[in-house]
Amino acid sequence: MAPSTPRLVVPVDLKKKPWEQTLPLHNRWHPGIPPVAEIKVREVFRVEMVDWTGGMIKDNDSAIDVKAIDLSSVHYLSGPIRVLDEEGNPAQPGDLLAVEICNLGPLPGDEWGFTASFDRENGGGFLTDHFPCATKAIWYFEGIFAYSPQIPGVRFPGLTHPGIVGTAPSRDLLNIWNDREREVEENGLKQLKLCEVLHSRPLANLPSTKGCHLGKIQKGTPEWEKIATEAARTIPGRENGGNCDIKNLSRGSKVYLPVFIEGANLSTGDMHFSQGDGEIAFCGAIEMSGFLELKCEIIKGGMKEYLTPMGPTPLHVNPIFEIGPVEPRFSEWLVFEGISVDESGRQHYLDASVAYKRAVLNAIDYLSKFGYSKEQMYLLLSCCPCEGRISGIVDSPNAVATLAVPTSIFDQDIRPKTKVPVGPQTGEDTGCAKMHL
Amino acid sequence: MAPSTPRLVVPVDLKKKPWEQTLPLHNRWHPGIPPVAEIKVREVFRVEMVDWTGGMIKDNDSAIDVKAIDLSSVHYLSGPIRVLDEEGNPAQPGDLLAVEICNLGPLPGDEWGFTASFDRENGGGFLTDHFPCATKAIWYFEGIFAYSPQIPGVRFPGLTHPGIVGTAPSRDLLNIWNDREREVEENGLKQLKLCEVLHSRPLANLPSTKGCHLGKIQKGTPEWEKIATEAARTIPGRENGGNCDIKNLSRGSKVYLPVFIEGANLSTGDMHFSQGDGEIAFCGAIEMSGFLELKCEIIKGGMKEYLTPMGPTPLHVNPIFEIGPVEPRFSEWLVFEGISVDESGRQHYLDASVAYKRAVLNAIDYLSKFGYSKEQMYLLLSCCPCEGRISGIVDSPNAVATLAVPTSIFDQDIRPKTKVPVGPQTGEDTGCAKMHL
Amino acid sequence: MAPSTPRLVVPVDLKKKPWEQTLPLHNRWHPGIPPVAEIKVREVFRVEMVDWTGGMIKDNDSAIDVKAIDLSSVHYLSGPIRVLDEEGNPAQPGDLLAVEICNLGPLPGDEWGFTASFDRENGGGFLTDHFPCATKAIWYFEGIFAYSPQIPGVRFPGLTHPGIVGTAPSRDLLNIWNDREREVEENGLKQLKLCEVLHSRPLANLPSTKGCHLGKIQKGTPEWEKIATEAARTIPGRENGGNCDIKNLSRGSKVYLPVFIEGANLSTGDMHFSQGDGEIAFCGAIEMSGFLELKCEIIKGGMKEYLTPMGPTPLHVNPIFEIGPVEPRFSEWLVFEGISVDESGRQHYLDASVAYKRAVLNAIDYLSKFGYSKEQMYLLLSCCPCEGRISGIVDSPNAVATLAVPTSIFDQDIRPKTKVPVGPQTGEDTGCAKMHL
Amino acid sequence: MAPSTPRLVVPVDLKKKPWEQTLPLHNRWHPGIPPVAEIKVREVFRVEMVDWTGGMIKDNDSAIDVKAIDLSSVHYLSGPIRVLDEEGNPAQPGDLLAVEICNLGPLPGDEWGFTASFDRENGGGFLTDHFPCATKAIWYFEGIFAYSPQIPGVRFPGLTHPGIVGTAPSRDLLNIWNDREREVEENGLKQLKLCEVLHSRPLANLPSTKGCHLGKIQKGTPEWEKIATEAARTIPGRENGGNCDIKNLSRGSKVYLPVFIEGANLSTGDMHFSQGDGEIAFCGAIEMSGFLELKCEIIKGGMKEYLTPMGPTPLHVNPIFEIGPVEPRFSEWLVFEGISVDESGRQHYLDASVAYKRAVLNAIDYLSKFGYSKEQMYLLLSCCPCEGRISGIVDSPNAVATLAVPTSIFDQDIRPKTKVPVGPQTGEDTGCAKMHL
Repeated sequence: MAPSTPRLVVPVDLKKKPWEQTLPLHNRWHPGIPPVAEIKVREVFRVEMVDWTGGMIKDNDSAIDVKAIDLSSVHYLSGPIRVLDEEGNPAQPGDLLAVEICNLGPLPGDEWGFTASFDRENGGGFLTDHFPCATKAIWYFEGIFAYSPQIPGVRFPGLTHPGIVGTAPSRDLLNIWNDREREVEENGLKQLKLCEVLHSRPLANLPSTKGCHLGKIQKGTPEWEKIATEAARTIPGRENGGNCDIKNLSRGSKVYLPVFIEGANLSTGDMHFSQGDGEIAFCGAIEMSGFLELKCEIIKGGMKEYLTPMGPTPLHVNPIFEIGPVEPRFSEWLVFEGISVDESGRQHYLDASVAYKRAVLNAIDYLSKFGYSKEQMYLLLSCCPCEGRISGIVDSPNAVATLAVPTSIFDQDIRPKTKVPVGPQTGEDTGCAKMHL
Repeated sequence: MAPSTPRLVVPVDLKKKPWEQTLPLHNRWHPGIPPVAEIKVREVFRVEMVDWTGGMIKDNDSAIDVKAIDLSSVHYLSGPIRVLDEEGNPAQPGDLLAVEICNLGPLPGDEWGFTASFDRENGGGFLTDHFPCATKAIWYFEGIFAYSPQIPGVRFPGLTHPGIVGTAPSRDLLNIWNDREREVEENGLKQLKLCEVLHSRPLANLPSTKGCHLGKIQKGTPEWEKIATEAARTIPGRENGGNCDIKNLSRGSKVYLPVFIEGANLSTGDMHFSQGDGEIAFCGAIEMSGFLELKCEIIKGGMKEYLTPMGPTPLHVNPIFEIGPVEPRFSEWLVFEGISVDESGRQHYLDASVAYKRAVLNAIDYLSKFGYSKEQMYLLLSCCPCEGRISGIVDSPNAVATLAVPTSIFDQDIRPKTKVPVGPQTGEDTGCAKMHL
Repeated sequence: MAPSTPRLVVPVDLKKKPWEQTLPLHNRWHPGIPPVAEIKVREVFRVEMVDWTGGMIKDNDSAIDVKAIDLSSVHYLSGPIRVLDEEGNPAQPGDLLAVEICNLGPLPGDEWGFTASFDRENGGGFLTDHFPCATKAIWYFEGIFAYSPQIPGVRFPGLTHPGIVGTAPSRDLLNIWNDREREVEENGLKQLKLCEVLHSRPLANLPSTKGCHLGKIQKGTPEWEKIATEAARTIPGRENGGNCDIKNLSRGSKVYLPVFIEGANLSTGDMHFSQGDGEIAFCGAIEMSGFLELKCEIIKGGMKEYLTPMGPTPLHVNPIFEIGPVEPRFSEWLVFEGISVDESGRQHYLDASVAYKRAVLNAIDYLSKFGYSKEQMYLLLSCCPCEGRISGIVDSPNAVATLAVPTSIFDQDIRPKTKVPVGPQTGEDTGCAKMHL
Repeated sequence: MAPSTPRLVVPVDLKKKPWEQTLPLHNRWHPGIPPVAEIKVREVFRVEMVDWTGGMIKDNDSAIDVKAIDLSSVHYLSGPIRVLDEEGNPAQPGDLLAVEICNLGPLPGDEWGFTASFDRENGGGFLTDHFPCATKAIWYFEGIFAYSPQIPGVRFPGLTHPGIVGTAPSRDLLNIWNDREREVEENGLKQLKLCEVLHSRPLANLPSTKGCHLGKIQKGTPEWEKIATEAARTIPGRENGGNCDIKNLSRGSKVYLPVFIEGANLSTGDMHFSQGDGEIAFCGAIEMSGFLELKCEIIKGGMKEYLTPMGPTPLHVNPIFEIGPVEPRFSEWLVFEGISVDESGRQHYLDASVAYKRAVLNAIDYLSKFGYSKEQMYLLLSCCPCEGRISGIVDSPNAVATLAVPTSIFDQDIRPKTKVPVGPQTGEDTGCAKMHL
């Protein structure tokens, strides 16, 4: 009579490469990637996932692996999973797929993760013009807590979540993605909106056969060639959810995803033990291999009912979320403010990205006074449960953004005091080269 | 032996104009505006404030007053207050002024407020290209709760805070402000970073003698002419704090402000009964007259110790905050996501402002399905305690922003359901013209 | 069109005695005490209240006033207030009166309070066999925060609430009260259930003409004599609510009170700036004069619908509450456990009172290691926002109770450490005699 | 370099009986039960545990197993575990053992639990005089959530915790326990403090060879006979922690246990997926098999430093706890009040047990109006995350206790409304006999 233990529909063996798994993983979005499993609504099922790099980063003290990373092969996703209603009929385009995250965690036997910043020439990050080198911190898990030998004096409970959860795009939606992203890549430097103070990072990541894996589709076949040429990369979040990196999508939360093709073809990946709002260092969460226990519902015709298109086609929608009931609880926060004036003193117009950059820079500098290097704090603010807020977006010309850091993650009192702080001085000079390479 | 009731250092009489008060208010930032009061550190004192328009908006059902508003005369600030240490010596440039908000609230006898969106030709707001008309909602307070006849079915506890708290700029800092803002106003349209999708709102608000009030300095005198010509407007938040509109700066919080001139010259204003992150409608908080009970500390030399300059001069700093312990508590949130693709389908590069705009538009459309007009929801999301987050800022080319709305502020269940929602249908067609003019 | 500022229906002048107020206060429960004001449902109204002793305790450093207190004249209540429905008809017996606490606070101009333990011969307290002397701590308020010169190193936000809110009893209910309490007083020492380890405190407080005040009824008249002889004392909480001392009945909460007589006759008093669960020192909250802003609804016939009698008559009911949304937020708690074995080592059977006593004693001893006297901690645990829980009530023979103390109210880290704590040593020997008399 | 996955120091195979495990379980407290494993401080280790009955209760719809349960063989504990410091020296009497709960959960592959009330003649429960029959509800887990076919319309996140965590007693402490509990059992009915209104349940559970299991000690040997005759039963919480049933002892919490014998000999058991304060139905939590991941520290001499004895010997101490950071978050609570007047109308003197009983009865009756039987609500309030508070313990003669129920665990609005509620009417007449036998 009892419901059985969650059925493991996508198993992962960490000793094998992502594309050698029993159910080979995929790292592109495309309607033609065939499902590897089927589930029915209301059934709790379990999906296992490799870390987003598929094992490229090692549990050691060197950032050489980070420096050498090849972004063309990420993120490895588990799925697609075809979703059926109670009568066994697949979800239909126009439905809404409600996915509840019943539970999640690191993959048993692999309780560690990493936070890294990429080299400026290899993907960079939000502050790559300040922190151009590849760096890495390893995090070990003690149940709900994480600590890092590279960032001593810090320990915190994770707000664990999947960075990526999404449905497969239809062909039409895929075309929209490829067109608009190609436009940015091709004409970006000539255009108005380039967020150029965020440094010249790659403008977009267009379809590429290099590093492409398409699950069960054999590499080199004509089908593979065709799909690989047009399949969307997984780096940005888009209409199907995807790499939205919303740190609050944790235990007990629920995401309502639009369904674009029959069966929905749900894929997940990029597990984060913890992440700060913005995931600023790019590989900035505590990245790990992990599992999800999920339960689905289909809301028939729900896309039209609940997701008003905001753009030129009915496909221009975004998912909705409900936050779960067991997030870590912090009651004391130190908050850093930033305005949309950049580091050169130049005024930007209501630019929340610039304001947030400034808030993050302020926080890094402040915290480095307590015995840390700035590189350490860049990584920490990428992965600890800090909150990035758009506080003011209307008071021309300044946007105001804030970054709130929970004070209890430190083993010292980091609030301003009337006396000058003397930190634990854990931080010998930790230039990225010396520390991690 | 007991400390007396907080000393009222800046009283306000709502029957008088802001500039006719016993201690006349001011609406510019300038080192030359003379202090109206002195306080010592550790003394709890009370400041009263008019609403930011100085009484231009009336408690009635018409938005004519909103349409006619003259932004040149805002915001009316109470102060400046000169701050002395325990020996009676004034705070010095380079110190940090810690201001604790011991208590705050509406001005007794005036328990109401308003939320308004400005006309597109008169200041506009974050979504002025979608909502070009002036609209207004009146809010009545029942202790900690607010409700509005214009937005029935909604009631919530306020996260009350001052929109503006700041120290006076030094002459050098003032010059920096005026130069960089003039640059935007003069060259903005030719420049790269214009956030142009946020519509052609005023680029900056430069010094103007029109509408200027300088406290005790007599209008028309040579001193007034000089200062009025160079004093900074109060609309944007800047290095001195100012109009930072941080909704969490509520009871029990603490702000650490840089001191730029002797005595610090602290001014406050723009009381909000409640505000959502972003204050999207511009006059978007629940604006009211109110009081603050404050307590100051001086951290000698604290600017250098705690606020690393992030820009070309030592003056390029930002304040720090600590959040207080009695914010309203919500446990259930519905979250809307936005990516940096605008309503025309165009891709923007890691632009958090565009992503947030999209999240807000998604939320407005969704909520309007529950019996509300979109104008009503635009105003509501400006002023209810919703949270705007920068969730992802590194996954090129999409920034991901989220807007979290507490579900319990509605008297109906606004979560997606398998059945189509049938709202209270309170919303007859509420075009802004009909509803409010 | 705006609702006016809350109507002040019961004003208080602290310069006058409770019985000399414009609307004289009362300190007994009786159906015959005439209403002093009328309100309609949905109207927000304001009630002012004296502290529960009516001004007997002074803002000074001596506990002589505490030692001399005469309990026969407490608690002074504001009211009764007659409640009418929207048509002007009074609430009826059998209705449920929903009272929302819209706001509350200290009486402006009187921002201080006191916590006291009574002398063993004069009322005592939960731990009177350990702390037999009268002691007193004065608390000063800085907005939402309280601090005490007698207990340095401690500061906390108040969870402010009225200790007493209740409706008038019917004559039948009054008889039930007097009969059952007389039975305890007369036969208590011979009976089984005496909680005798809680020391021989007064068993009950029966009606007494001494110290009796009945509002507008003239002292000495036949009517006064009759009512004074039979009116119930206000000390215990009972079926009508009354002195329930529920610390969470704060801003935004709602209490559903049974209506026993026409008009409900609502009275309130005993304002607490803050209280710990149990209010262990008896006069143990931070007692103060204050105000309430209330809003009522009448649920017709609600007593029968919602309050099942649990006893021999339909009058044996208890109120229900809803907790409000703005309680102070603490995330770190140190918890002390107690079992139902008393200080002599004797086993009691599932006795939660004994277990809680033990938990409180454990907490006092522990905290006194950080530089405090035990008397200081007895008073602090009476009034700070600590939580007293019944954790286990079934595991014969031990009940388990816990007392959770928020750690952030102290200015030092009070958690156990591997090194021996060295407190601030503020506590010279503070025998109650020396400290406060 | 990475710490390995937590070492499994006590494995459990659910297909075997508790006493047939590789490391046989024990169900008594005694210094002579030999350790089954050793751990060092700072090592995260994993312990598996059977449910407290050792598998006597089945996942089915009948309460026959509950009716037949034999309490002499409970609780089955995993351990003892001998704790060593970093140098390999065992913990010493007088030390304090800090145990952090890094993680916990159901035993993988066995994701269900049960809540039961025992028959009046077989252990009973807090309300056995109201609910004399054995009843049972099965709970299935969906990750962090639990739901029960027997109590439809309810679902909640668990506040998972071990009911039992304790160190082994010394011989002296064991003698104290046996003496004082024998005194209650032998003289209880003649004594004052019997909490007799809680019905004649077993007064104590004295040592008994029946059902006794002592880990590796062979049954029937002289050693077994000796220890079984004197070993303490595990039912009550005591000085060593033991069955304290503190629901907040969940993920991330920390318990400081006194060490009475060399090595500490830590044992754990009685895993609860969730429990309400009081665990009123006796087998009232959601009982399950589960695992703990723990980390220990030894505070040398910490017993003397932190745990003041409160009784005739230095052994009369109680543990201290710190609450963890990831408890489920609820913001809306409905609170039921009880006073120390029993169901017959009789007045008890400051008796928190009677007051809590009354609060629980009030809650059961209230909630049964929403389509449930009272038996269903008795079980629900035993196991859902409700809070039992001692609100007032000084206002003679009434103690006031409260029971706060989070409203969001129900799929309907259970708050009082002006209209009469019409529940889901799921509750056909559910007399315990019909429903579960």
